[in-house]
Amino acid sequence: MREFDAIERYFRPLSGEGALSLLDDAAVIEPRPGFDTIITTDVLVEGVHFLASTTASDIAFKTLATNISDCVAKGGVPHGYFVGLSVPAASATDDWFSSFSSGLKDAQTQFKCSLLGGDTTLSLSGITVCITILGYVPEGRMIKRSGAKPGHNVYVTGNIGDGALGLLCARDQIDGFIDLESAYFRPQPPTQFVQNLISFASASADISDGLIADAGHVAAASGVGMVIYRSDVPLSSSSKRFLEKYPQHAHLPLMGGDDYQVVFTAPPEHGSKIEELVAHLNHKVTKIGVCREGAGIDVVEPDGLPLDLANLGYEHFRES
Amino acid sequence: MREFDAIERYFRPLSGEGALSLLDDAAVIEPRPGFDTIITTDVLVEGVHFLASTTASDIAFKTLATNISDCVAKGGVPHGYFVGLSVPAASATDDWFSSFSSGLKDAQTQFKCSLLGGDTTLSLSGITVCITILGYVPEGRMIKRSGAKPGHNVYVTGNIGDGALGLLCARDQIDGFIDLESAYFRPQPPTQFVQNLISFASASADISDGLIADAGHVAAASGVGMVIYRSDVPLSSSSKRFLEKYPQHAHLPLMGGDDYQVVFTAPPEHGSKIEELVAHLNHKVTKIGVCREGAGIDVVEPDGLPLDLANLGYEHFRES
Repeated sequence: MREFDAIERYFRPLSGEGALSLLDDAAVIEPRPGFDTIITTDVLVEGVHFLASTTASDIAFKTLATNISDCVAKGGVPHGYFVGLSVPAASATDDWFSSFSSGLKDAQTQFKCSLLGGDTTLSLSGITVCITILGYVPEGRMIKRSGAKPGHNVYVTGNIGDGALGLLCARDQIDGFIDLESAYFRPQPPTQFVQNLISFASASADISDGLIADAGHVAAASGVGMVIYRSDVPLSSSSKRFLEKYPQHAHLPLMGGDDYQVVFTAPPEHGSKIEELVAHLNHKVTKIGVCREGAGIDVVEPDGLPLDLANLGYEHFRES
Repeated sequence: MREFDAIERYFRPLSGEGALSLLDDAAVIEPRPGFDTIITTDVLVEGVHFLASTTASDIAFKTLATNISDCVAKGGVPHGYFVGLSVPAASATDDWFSSFSSGLKDAQTQFKCSLLGGDTTLSLSGITVCITILGYVPEGRMIKRSGAKPGHNVYVTGNIGDGALGLLCARDQIDGFIDLESAYFRPQPPTQFVQNLISFASASADISDGLIADAGHVAAASGVGMVIYRSDVPLSSSSKRFLEKYPQHAHLPLMGGDDYQVVFTAPPEHGSKIEELVAHLNHKVTKIGVCREGAGIDVVEPDGLPLDLANLGYEHFRES
């Protein structure tokens, strides 16, 4: 279908204030005194970040969710997003755009933001989606990676590992773990809980490259080390069931990616405030460790022995 | 090379205020009361928007220039940009990133903006670059496509057609027109002149899909028609020389794309103000036509007869 038709039929209904109904060359955002704008970009590529068999709807949902995850991990309240989309001519059908836009709609409804603009082009091979998201945080209050101090506790939201195990199920056609696959295809960043993060977190990051890798980013930026207790890392009941059956993948909740939960640190005096909020919102938040002097991540096994961390999570452009 | 190494070595030196040295998950932009933020996204795809033989430096320069073009056409002063980059593993070498970042550096130095963030990933095939740019305009003053009225004059900045003819030279290896190729590979949006556009333009757009197509966007959004005098469309001396030799391409300055100049309209009473500014800045700006009641673009040939516009410029996803 033609680009202008796709915009009019499928993207315009998603557009929000400032998008000028996608009829102009740019979006215009009014000033918001007292608030900083948080902006972040994620690119998802067919065959690298999603399987070629993934539906357009799930591609759209996931790309927006991965951006939401970065935004909320910084304490931001999502506002709007821009989509840069490249699609091969053979895929660029009416049905494809209908599905893609329905995934965006699901995500923007759930995460409370709207489409502000974008660019839709042909590609010669494979689908690439680049989303840039804007969110707001009270001026000067963005939560950085760099504020953790020795003695601060380390927390994660939600469950860890569902996404990585879900990818395994989808890729290797392992049946019986539909909620792990769902966690992989439609990640659920903890938007509601983390909007309170600015009142108690000292540092934070989203978990996209794997728990150890992303906790490692926080530790490195903060100039601290971390001790993480493996038995405290929260697994869903489906993940536990999967790992009982396939124990060879027991490293994935630590090393896999695709969680789109948040790892954050907080001074111990905020512990009770966090517990109160968790109870109030009925949201799963788990203390998994503590920051220490030094550098690096030590994972302590249930028997008290250190885990050997030869492989520190997925990294793009790893030298082979 | 590894993603983190590429960021540290090649992208961090380009990063500006708010980018947090590219060490965090997001950029943070302080509020700027009194100014609207203009945001726009462009995607460039290997084999679609640039030849596979294009240097990484030229790919980078051009992608940023195409975004600058949208931003300044709206009256915006560029501030900063985000890069979503997908590169096949075989291309993701130290040399490639060095070249890519040098092209970004050239462009951001020329256009006075800085890198704020991004995402660098592998692709399975071909290079895709998505840039999202932010600029500022005094509150409420963005120049839209929709403000032209019958009787307003139609202007273009710079020369028209150099980019499309330059692509032809590069693709078909036609020698002797190095400045046309240069216009194609390193477009020069008229940043200095158009920063004054908000004081006299009634509507504007950048010229990326071809003069007739983009003037047509302005006419359609404004609910007016336009008469464009073909003999007034400004051609460079190189374009004239090219078209004398290859007259079969005479339609390209009207129909080709890749100009990254600006088409704008202005009420006739601003004519002398525009002439004064053009003289002061020594910038080429040409009146090429006038808005009329009705709809559509009429191109008038030098003999006074209408040109038949069967093909209204390049459009993505054209049905074949």
